[in-house]
Amino acid sequence: MTIRFAERMINVKPSAIRELLQLGADPAIISFGGGYPDASLFPLEQLNSVFQTAILDQGRDALQYTVSNGIPKLRAQIAERMAKEGIKCNQENVLILQGGQQGLDLVAKMMVNKGDLIITEDPTFLGALAAFNPYEPRYATVPMDKDGMDINALERTLAANLEAKFIYTVPDFQNPTGVTMSLSRRKELIELANRYDVVILEDTPYREVRFEGESLPPIKSFDTEDRVIYLGSFSKILAPGLRLGWAVASDDIAQRLTLLKLGADTQCSTLNMAAVSLFLDSFDIEPHIANIRQTYLRKKNLMLDTIRQTFPQEVSFTEPSGGMFTWLTFEYGFDAGRFMRERALPEAKVAYVPGAPFFAVEPKPNHARVSYSTQTDERIFEGISRLGRLLKTAVHQAKAS
Amino acid sequence: MTIRFAERMINVKPSAIRELLQLGADPAIISFGGGYPDASLFPLEQLNSVFQTAILDQGRDALQYTVSNGIPKLRAQIAERMAKEGIKCNQENVLILQGGQQGLDLVAKMMVNKGDLIITEDPTFLGALAAFNPYEPRYATVPMDKDGMDINALERTLAANLEAKFIYTVPDFQNPTGVTMSLSRRKELIELANRYDVVILEDTPYREVRFEGESLPPIKSFDTEDRVIYLGSFSKILAPGLRLGWAVASDDIAQRLTLLKLGADTQCSTLNMAAVSLFLDSFDIEPHIANIRQTYLRKKNLMLDTIRQTFPQEVSFTEPSGGMFTWLTFEYGFDAGRFMRERALPEAKVAYVPGAPFFAVEPKPNHARVSYSTQTDERIFEGISRLGRLLKTAVHQAKAS
Repeated sequence: MTIRFAERMINVKPSAIRELLQLGADPAIISFGGGYPDASLFPLEQLNSVFQTAILDQGRDALQYTVSNGIPKLRAQIAERMAKEGIKCNQENVLILQGGQQGLDLVAKMMVNKGDLIITEDPTFLGALAAFNPYEPRYATVPMDKDGMDINALERTLAANLEAKFIYTVPDFQNPTGVTMSLSRRKELIELANRYDVVILEDTPYREVRFEGESLPPIKSFDTEDRVIYLGSFSKILAPGLRLGWAVASDDIAQRLTLLKLGADTQCSTLNMAAVSLFLDSFDIEPHIANIRQTYLRKKNLMLDTIRQTFPQEVSFTEPSGGMFTWLTFEYGFDAGRFMRERALPEAKVAYVPGAPFFAVEPKPNHARVSYSTQTDERIFEGISRLGRLLKTAVHQAKAS
Repeated sequence: MTIRFAERMINVKPSAIRELLQLGADPAIISFGGGYPDASLFPLEQLNSVFQTAILDQGRDALQYTVSNGIPKLRAQIAERMAKEGIKCNQENVLILQGGQQGLDLVAKMMVNKGDLIITEDPTFLGALAAFNPYEPRYATVPMDKDGMDINALERTLAANLEAKFIYTVPDFQNPTGVTMSLSRRKELIELANRYDVVILEDTPYREVRFEGESLPPIKSFDTEDRVIYLGSFSKILAPGLRLGWAVASDDIAQRLTLLKLGADTQCSTLNMAAVSLFLDSFDIEPHIANIRQTYLRKKNLMLDTIRQTFPQEVSFTEPSGGMFTWLTFEYGFDAGRFMRERALPEAKVAYVPGAPFFAVEPKPNHARVSYSTQTDERIFEGISRLGRLLKTAVHQAKAS
């Protein structure tokens, strides 16, 4: 049976991560692939308590529809947290989202027509490309170093693309590289955006999971022209299964995004918003975040120490001050995807995310994203050691051949 | 300060309903506007129990990320419920959504490019237009009578628009009219869709809230060519604040929608999915639904009886067998929006939804949607009586002038 209507649907490419995660579902395999927070850190007792209050004491409201931008109380609480970060805003500037991810979709829906240009870091967050791609943009990419986006390269890109719609950046502990944009580059970035009249989409899911050094001001805190759309998330500081994030934007942009949110899914779960609002009221979230930071610092140190001890010299890696990832760079010509399929999975029983799909324009196969957040200390040591031994063998084999 | 980037964003029109609901926020006003279920029917104790189990016993999974199409257990439970409706499917055909509303967005995202044609009922669900409009479709509309879409008119529309992307229908107790598509028209509709090779988007949020007569088979149950995308919802049988609905579609379409869901918001709340799955396992939802039906039947009867007793003869209304709405038709030339602003709100302190925005192409101002689900019996009687008295006065004034 040939059905023509199928030809009239857009083609959607399966996510490379998704396919690899299916490979890594074998329990014998130690996976550093998924960008999952450590589930042992979820505050179950506290969450149970606030859900119980939300349902039994507030259920007639908390299980009903509410406004599309989210319950006012939680928006006010977020605005207050944002003020502490140097972002001037009130609850009307805050829009509650189905995770930060939904902000990527709605901003693209608001701004991008087929063929419009988005500027991304190179590499960039794969989920952002999944959100943007259905709107059929073109991409221009800006290389990164250990201080984030190369601002000179960005200026050349802006000068060559005056109609660029927005610059997408993950300034804190970027996914996939773990790199943080320096303070001076944050200031240069906002100046460039002002000069070239372009929107910045600042995505900060890992921002509060800084385990070393001082927190840097968000780009949005330098925004005097209402051109930064800031995205935050409860996924890494509370739990991703709640699906709650937020946008902070100008009144005008927040209203546009709210109307798009209304059409996209009406609103976020009233119950989950009510429960998180109660959580912020009833408990001090800061010691909880401090505990996450401490745990991830220990895991990051363990992973990087194990890499130093077991990996061949030819493999370099980033040193994140927060977040969940380090980024491996192999020698030119090394295909991390092929190596995983043909050797790491069958021989070392280890999975990671090959780096190629993180590049919006020109895939570079000699990279991999490795997450230290999900696995136990024992499995981090065991898995990274196994991968290191295999990589050393492979390097020797390559040199011998 | 003039910022050019704002000109590069799409224009989003505020929802007419939203503006009117803000007018109706005054507690002195009896609003029949919102399409809200009766919150006194939410099963708070049972929901509290399943959320507690989901968090305390399953929290490491239930608060973590999961697959984008939703937890397998809940998909299997929905597939089983669908089988009882005559829809052959398995859990791979089911995609959990952020309310049925998200299905409208994702189907439009999958199928609609700027200028593509969508066929809707006339009038149609306002939220569907809010979901479709950002993709900039054209619309063709098909008139309805008491048995749903006029199938002869639909055939003429299809013949004149061979490239139509899909037909959008709410066959059970339609929003806004409360009308149900007859069995024979359901069969004629699927035959026409097969002949003209077009997709049907069957949206059924009120389907299980039938309080009179026999349930009719879903259009999807007659689908032999995988061209019907079925949308269901827990909003009216459990609680809208959970934001859970589902799509049933062919393997191919379900996979495409899942990838779009991944980009749009990653997934629904794992916790809410786990809790609803536990609810379906732990409790019998059927007596709960029976209670909703009984309550809405009583309220519908009260509202329609009060309309019969108090409204002028010139106003006609639909007689729904389920759902939450009746649809008023005033004399030609009557402007229900203007009447609400200028008289019903200030004089009778009553709100409804003026009908004009429910028409995708040509707004007809002499209609209104009235919901009997939200208000208490006392307020239904009081509000409808006040509106009836005011309408009678208005009719007399119009005849006298």
